[in-house]
Amino acid sequence: MLKKRRFMQKVVGIFVFDDIEVLDFCGPFEVLSVTRLDESKRLESLSPFDVKLVAMTKDVIFTKGNMKIIPDFDFKTCPKLDILIVPGGMGTRKLMYDERVLDFISKKANEVELLTSVCTGSLILASAKLLDGVNATTHWKSLQRMEDEFKNVKVCKDKHYVEDGNIISSAGISAGIDMALYIVKRYFGENVSRATAKHMEYPYLEENKRRIEI
Amino acid sequence: MLKKRRFMQKVVGIFVFDDIEVLDFCGPFEVLSVTRLDESKRLESLSPFDVKLVAMTKDVIFTKGNMKIIPDFDFKTCPKLDILIVPGGMGTRKLMYDERVLDFISKKANEVELLTSVCTGSLILASAKLLDGVNATTHWKSLQRMEDEFKNVKVCKDKHYVEDGNIISSAGISAGIDMALYIVKRYFGENVSRATAKHMEYPYLEENKRRIEI
Repeated sequence: MLKKRRFMQKVVGIFVFDDIEVLDFCGPFEVLSVTRLDESKRLESLSPFDVKLVAMTKDVIFTKGNMKIIPDFDFKTCPKLDILIVPGGMGTRKLMYDERVLDFISKKANEVELLTSVCTGSLILASAKLLDGVNATTHWKSLQRMEDEFKNVKVCKDKHYVEDGNIISSAGISAGIDMALYIVKRYFGENVSRATAKHMEYPYLEENKRRIEI
Repeated sequence: MLKKRRFMQKVVGIFVFDDIEVLDFCGPFEVLSVTRLDESKRLESLSPFDVKLVAMTKDVIFTKGNMKIIPDFDFKTCPKLDILIVPGGMGTRKLMYDERVLDFISKKANEVELLTSVCTGSLILASAKLLDGVNATTHWKSLQRMEDEFKNVKVCKDKHYVEDGNIISSAGISAGIDMALYIVKRYFGENVSRATAKHMEYPYLEENKRRIEI
């Protein structure tokens, strides 16, 4: 039984980099790694998602606020992914012009079944031209920049996360939690998603509208 | 100006350990490291909190879900703290009976101006007898255990976080975010706390009651 579930796990890669915003990647990490298909068997079962951190190199990552984390894979060793999550943070400002990053993200975008971003991670996707003609969003303080710099992106200001086919982008920082809960819902239904939120004592997003006044 | 603020920073230690729940420590880490006293000077200023991860040894920590993090200090090198945060997770189950941990927490409890816990981190505080006669809470699935095992704790089931003098405990996992926003409010007022939540696009807790139905 355990073997079967392990075999069925979706492999999720979260791209990590220096000056990444902590909750941008830890929110989705938490949601997707604590999800259980059967809440009553939480302790003896695995998440249907296998979540890994992927960085450009194997060096220690220094997040915003200087938490030190060790990536699981670098660009070269990264396994085939089912889902890619691109988080945001100040570190995106230069990465969105780094060809090695744009190449990696573009290559993975062709491979995954679901491409997602949190916060200003959307600017990396936009810079890689993956959001051309796509409804998408970003941190509320970066919406104007997204509009100005990426004319082909259909910038969406009123939703907390935006799904457009197989691309889901989300609003700022904590919105990655809500987006991840939506990923759970998309794959395994609303009951599993709600049970995950309840386990986390997190207020489930009843209506997908931006949670702050811009 | 920057020097003065650095001098005034509150030093926050977050206790980390193997099998710690990721959002339990990353939630407060995010909130306290992105707080700014003047939102309009966010980019050129520091948080009034200096947040550090403290572990029993300097070994790499493997969280629940296997994120690998490097602590800033071990028990021996840990500097004087103003605030101690004790997060939860499956790892607490054996640590709450480990004398080295109880000794460290007890020593720090005498030193800090604010002692806090997230989720089942409260069980460690209870085991160290720091919650005797104190109103406190924990993850909703551990409330009964707290009542059964620690008869002297005044277990509180209806609040999302519980403040009793200089001890603040919180409900499960994501409640650490709300507790940390309350710490910001306690030190620097509601406006600064609300601005921090808005920066994170996080729904500010308008009323301190448990966010899920038990």
